[in-house]
Amino acid sequence: MVGEPAGIGPEVVVRAWATGRVHEVSIPMLVGSAASIERALEVTGVAARVRVLRSFDAPSDDPAIIDVLDTGALDAADLPFAEDTLASGLATAQWLAELDALARDGHFAGTVMGPISTGSLKLAGKLDMVISPTPGESYLLLLTGPLRVAHLTDHMSIRTVCDLITPDLIDGALQQIDAAMRSWGVNDPRIVVAGLNPHATGEEEVRAIAPGVARARQRGINVEGPSAPDTVFRQCIEGRYDLVLAMFHDQGHIAVKTWGFSGNCVIMMGPPYLHMSVAHGTAYDIVGTGKADPAMMLSAMRTCGVLAAGKGFSGIDN
Amino acid sequence: MVGEPAGIGPEVVVRAWATGRVHEVSIPMLVGSAASIERALEVTGVAARVRVLRSFDAPSDDPAIIDVLDTGALDAADLPFAEDTLASGLATAQWLAELDALARDGHFAGTVMGPISTGSLKLAGKLDMVISPTPGESYLLLLTGPLRVAHLTDHMSIRTVCDLITPDLIDGALQQIDAAMRSWGVNDPRIVVAGLNPHATGEEEVRAIAPGVARARQRGINVEGPSAPDTVFRQCIEGRYDLVLAMFHDQGHIAVKTWGFSGNCVIMMGPPYLHMSVAHGTAYDIVGTGKADPAMMLSAMRTCGVLAAGKGFSGIDN
Repeated sequence: MVGEPAGIGPEVVVRAWATGRVHEVSIPMLVGSAASIERALEVTGVAARVRVLRSFDAPSDDPAIIDVLDTGALDAADLPFAEDTLASGLATAQWLAELDALARDGHFAGTVMGPISTGSLKLAGKLDMVISPTPGESYLLLLTGPLRVAHLTDHMSIRTVCDLITPDLIDGALQQIDAAMRSWGVNDPRIVVAGLNPHATGEEEVRAIAPGVARARQRGINVEGPSAPDTVFRQCIEGRYDLVLAMFHDQGHIAVKTWGFSGNCVIMMGPPYLHMSVAHGTAYDIVGTGKADPAMMLSAMRTCGVLAAGKGFSGIDN
Repeated sequence: MVGEPAGIGPEVVVRAWATGRVHEVSIPMLVGSAASIERALEVTGVAARVRVLRSFDAPSDDPAIIDVLDTGALDAADLPFAEDTLASGLATAQWLAELDALARDGHFAGTVMGPISTGSLKLAGKLDMVISPTPGESYLLLLTGPLRVAHLTDHMSIRTVCDLITPDLIDGALQQIDAAMRSWGVNDPRIVVAGLNPHATGEEEVRAIAPGVARARQRGINVEGPSAPDTVFRQCIEGRYDLVLAMFHDQGHIAVKTWGFSGNCVIMMGPPYLHMSVAHGTAYDIVGTGKADPAMMLSAMRTCGVLAAGKGFSGIDN
């Protein structure tokens, strides 16, 4: 899904597409505004031909052809530029629904959500389509090279996190994460759970985290923890684990963002298919300048292709 | 202070000393077991002469001479090796007291505590000499190149941190940190306070952190915040701030340890002089092998010399 048509989404998509590297690992198709892609080709100077599909059809495997599924959610004459609009918000909601339906039907093995605008979605009253993950249902997973972090909770106060953690929540998250990693081709995933408190020695570790980990181990999941939060991310980088389950938003985000942004991409765990997004926004300040860096979009598109094909984390080479 | 004589402290001290680089920025002197230094010279093959002082005297500025103030706290015949002992614990407590008294009297401009053994101190009933910093009194500051983090709280549960934060605590910490940085030669220190909750939007930010920052600003302290915890450490690395005040142990430790360990050193803020320590332990498993890496000790000794001389963070070149 191209993302907010008024933002840099279309530009980074066509520049990622033009590298030809997305096609090495997948047969991609776009969902969104075909007009925004035409404009992005002009801005970026990328030479490719847009083929507009009004309903799903088999996409071309030729990088010179950009297949865009555009069901007419946004009138091409109303194409917005570097601003939030009600029309964009309504169209974004429709594209997300179309994307989800096609993935659930098996038409897509994996999906990538380009940079959307929460402002436009808000104008359309559709912000609930991209709200924060609900603990126990969905989890945000950040991937940056060997540092892979799933988050038990997202935009939630630290105090609420303390109250919320239970053995069931930990065990359930571990089952979901383990199953997802296996479906991506990660063999016998090695997971570690970060503690909540310094050196993982606190009331919540004893009451909830350790019992939750024990239950998951009894199920045969290869999981350790709770481990000291301050060393566990470095241990993951050094290859001791495939993934860290962080207890709260900043525990994982501090590790990922302080270590480095490059190659950073995002998996939204929850839907029954691989659903990814990019870690940057619409960047209205540079739309139309051709300056937008396609690295994260390329990383997301390639990672999506590799994991949806079950080639494992070791198949990612961005 | 050399640290636990049974650990790698003596070895890393003599190897750091032998580089000659400590003397570029200071006139160093050791406090501790002279016999442990003699043994470390044999293990490491470092060629230097130990001069034992029974009471404080002016140290030599010649790197070939190692002045050790050894008041006889530990019998040289009882020198332990790679194990915790009561004798070492009692001696360590005495060395720490001697170090503190000499620094308070102005004999030392700054002090570095080598890797001590909490096991030995426990045997001696003296563990309280190295307990965690008390919020409002002392703060642990980690330095790793441009990433400098002071911690409002240390070994304390996350839930307790939520209850403990007040405007006074924030304001007091900022005053103490600002004054210390100025004494180290940092001109108009730029401090940023990390929030507690995701995106720094929570109850504690409104109730305590923002009002504390506002008070400190009224005093003329150049401080911003509360800022989103997940981006503020990266902003510090990129040079936007001189120091981040983290709200809890792991917030800062995750950033520092995930970003990288090299050059990492520690300032224990609280004493009325510059008091540092090294970020590693006694490493009993490699004592006597000569494998111990002196990099962190060298970094601590040089940083201590630079900051105690008021040359600022920009003078650190480890």
